Amino acid sequence: MTPVDQMLGWPAFELSAALDAGAITSLDLTRAYLARIQGLNPRLNAYLCVLPEMALQAAENAALRASQGRRLGPLDGMPIAVKDNIDVKGVPTTAGMDCRRSPPAGEDAQAVRLLRASGAVILGKTNMDEAAMGGTSDNPFFGRTHHPLKHGYTPGGSSGGSAAAVAANLCAAALGTDTLGSLRIPASYCGVAALKPTFGLVSTRGVCPLCHRLDHVGPIARAIEDLQLILDVIGRYDPACPDARAAPADLERPQIKPLAACTIGTLRNLEEVAAEPAVRAAYAAALGVLASLGCRVQSVDLQDYDPAAARRSGLLCGEADAANTHAAFLGESPPSLSREVRALISYGRDVSGARLARAHRHLDLIAFEFRALLRSVDVVVTATTPQAAFPFDQPVPGTQGDMTALANISGCPALTIPMGTDPAGLPLGLQFIGRAHAEATLFAIAGAFLKAAGTKHPLPDT
Amino acid sequence: MTPVDQMLGWPAFELSAALDAGAITSLDLTRAYLARIQGLNPRLNAYLCVLPEMALQAAENAALRASQGRRLGPLDGMPIAVKDNIDVKGVPTTAGMDCRRSPPAGEDAQAVRLLRASGAVILGKTNMDEAAMGGTSDNPFFGRTHHPLKHGYTPGGSSGGSAAAVAANLCAAALGTDTLGSLRIPASYCGVAALKPTFGLVSTRGVCPLCHRLDHVGPIARAIEDLQLILDVIGRYDPACPDARAAPADLERPQIKPLAACTIGTLRNLEEVAAEPAVRAAYAAALGVLASLGCRVQSVDLQDYDPAAARRSGLLCGEADAANTHAAFLGESPPSLSREVRALISYGRDVSGARLARAHRHLDLIAFEFRALLRSVDVVVTATTPQAAFPFDQPVPGTQGDMTALANISGCPALTIPMGTDPAGLPLGLQFIGRAHAEATLFAIAGAFLKAAGTKHPLPDT
Repeated sequence: MTPVDQMLGWPAFELSAALDAGAITSLDLTRAYLARIQGLNPRLNAYLCVLPEMALQAAENAALRASQGRRLGPLDGMPIAVKDNIDVKGVPTTAGMDCRRSPPAGEDAQAVRLLRASGAVILGKTNMDEAAMGGTSDNPFFGRTHHPLKHGYTPGGSSGGSAAAVAANLCAAALGTDTLGSLRIPASYCGVAALKPTFGLVSTRGVCPLCHRLDHVGPIARAIEDLQLILDVIGRYDPACPDARAAPADLERPQIKPLAACTIGTLRNLEEVAAEPAVRAAYAAALGVLASLGCRVQSVDLQDYDPAAARRSGLLCGEADAANTHAAFLGESPPSLSREVRALISYGRDVSGARLARAHRHLDLIAFEFRALLRSVDVVVTATTPQAAFPFDQPVPGTQGDMTALANISGCPALTIPMGTDPAGLPLGLQFIGRAHAEATLFAIAGAFLKAAGTKHPLPDT
Repeated sequence: MTPVDQMLGWPAFELSAALDAGAITSLDLTRAYLARIQGLNPRLNAYLCVLPEMALQAAENAALRASQGRRLGPLDGMPIAVKDNIDVKGVPTTAGMDCRRSPPAGEDAQAVRLLRASGAVILGKTNMDEAAMGGTSDNPFFGRTHHPLKHGYTPGGSSGGSAAAVAANLCAAALGTDTLGSLRIPASYCGVAALKPTFGLVSTRGVCPLCHRLDHVGPIARAIEDLQLILDVIGRYDPACPDARAAPADLERPQIKPLAACTIGTLRNLEEVAAEPAVRAAYAAALGVLASLGCRVQSVDLQDYDPAAARRSGLLCGEADAANTHAAFLGESPPSLSREVRALISYGRDVSGARLARAHRHLDLIAFEFRALLRSVDVVVTATTPQAAFPFDQPVPGTQGDMTALANISGCPALTIPMGTDPAGLPLGLQFIGRAHAEATLFAIAGAFLKAAGTKHPLPDT
């Protein structure tokens, strides 16, 4: 094992310091990740497509800049993976769909463009649920991504390839997308951190859409500092993105309060979701840590909020949008969509207008009520998922997205960090949801929590 | 004719000066409007319901305050009419629907509450199209409202009762609603002024909804100064209104530029809508006046914008929302909805999810493109309607809302003012559409235009 090999599990911000110091070059780092991918990916299947030429060329450029003392910033030379529903120029964006194996994307997605402009190295494209419709990364065409700690277990989804790649140290960080929890669920299962930013803060231009009002792009990483570094680069109002509803003036981030002045809400409605005992215990312990930090922890209630009903409304809006996005594939014979995804999308296509209008209004009202609730507390804390990762041969729990959907529906930012493990050693996640554009508050609270709790992501068996 | 009778056609801001000076009392004014309503309304049918007791009580209170030198503001004692889809406590809100003749509303709508709190006198509720679905105020249950200048002609709709009441001097000003043009179309036809404010600026709480994403409440008056006075009172962010998407910080209004620094866009797409020759001629003359004021007038283009297709998408979203709002009445036997409205709402109920999702996305993209266009010009100017008022026995032109829908779809504020008359003496309207929360810019440009052009609202035959 070379010194670089021992660094592959470092957080990106520490890798950046090593690049700054000249201890390693981006070329060393990129080669080492590529070698590790070559060794582990056949069994893990986190990457659908590795881009060694493109990556090595970018790494060489970054190494040259570093050698001349002109690194572009902390992400210069940083090897990053990209979920396969986000365009990388010259490579097909499959979105996990058989029917999208070609053509190659003509342009980078805006988030990828910004990453590259900051010097990041794109290592490859990661596996996901077909059409991002699922939470297991058990893809009927591209195979399963396995959990890095336990083969045969799901890493979660739909950004499961990205989360597994980060957890298995196959990249420094990754991009994923999140419509009802697709960044946070796999990050929680895999023991890493992820941020779903405020709606509109990160451009969705160049991303294969699932549900226009709920889709978000965000980072997955081993440390919250890394999430912040990536957000600093990709969190730019994009005047050419129709989903960016906020005007530039809205993007001023609220000031951070001292931790002791923060009120943290626990949401009764989500505490009532059936969760595994280990999740309940870890969550209770986490609340204790938060209280020990001087935060006021207070139970709040979102009147009439039913997580399962909310999730179903969100799913329905996504199914109807998907019926238009994938219209060309719906009628194909022989079908190229899986039976399951075809059934979901056909349902959205054929559902009555009144039912769909009801679902949209349902989401509007939830967003309204939740944003109102966030005037009384600074942050809401929940478990990220009600369960740890589970074997592929077990039925998928319907509650997977019950904790996460609220942040998509409301557009509020949500951060997941590791919250220890269950008795089997499988990671659990803790979620903080904040006010629009209050990402900095989430980072501050989560940072203090991690310092106090000492929770880290469990290292995979290599 | 008493001196007060001669003042009934004054703009509200001049009436307010007279109330301030003690030249008249609110009781005089209210009694005079009530008497004029009694005389003219049987033929005009602008009011569905007059509220003399409530009005006289409020007027008495206002008169007392005025006599003690403590008027609450310029609207204190001002007699105002309210469209019958806006709740006034104790009176049914019919929304022009047979099935809603009872029960009485339990509370005032938020806009009515704010008006009353500023001392305004509510005279009564005005006629409208059934369920606000139309532009003629030809109501199958409550009868037609006639054009104040020409019996047998439509005053426009759906706020036709409000516009006719203002134009016929049956109130000092009125509230109406606007989903695709329902304030501006009747104001244009009747030769008065109306403002559709920025989406969310005026609360829709207590208003019978048509289309959640397009509905707006706004004022109709004889002078733009009056619109401003009313907006100052009702344009308050309502944290209890789910349709108010803007956070309070967004409500800061952009600064007004000097007129000579303003760029006014003429929208090619709307200039291509088939318009009557008199409308074209008056519009061309209006552009000349604007240029003479030192404004730069510049042709702009909203790529791929098809006004008719946009209107249809807006209508479809409204029909689907209406299917939920009026679900209880859809299945009734015998039906209490008219055949026409039942057909519209049933269409929205039964349309496919994919089609409805497409309509919503269509509106999203139009809003996005139009807001982007408003970065290159300060204001867009159009004729308000492509035609003057027409006889009830003529077919309704499909283009009625082609000029107005864009402001609903984008949420941008839009102001209509008189633009002279056609050869038959029927009024025409000029519309200014501005950036979100730039109402002040619209008032400034329209004010300068009116001063230069000398356009006034034509007096009705009394």
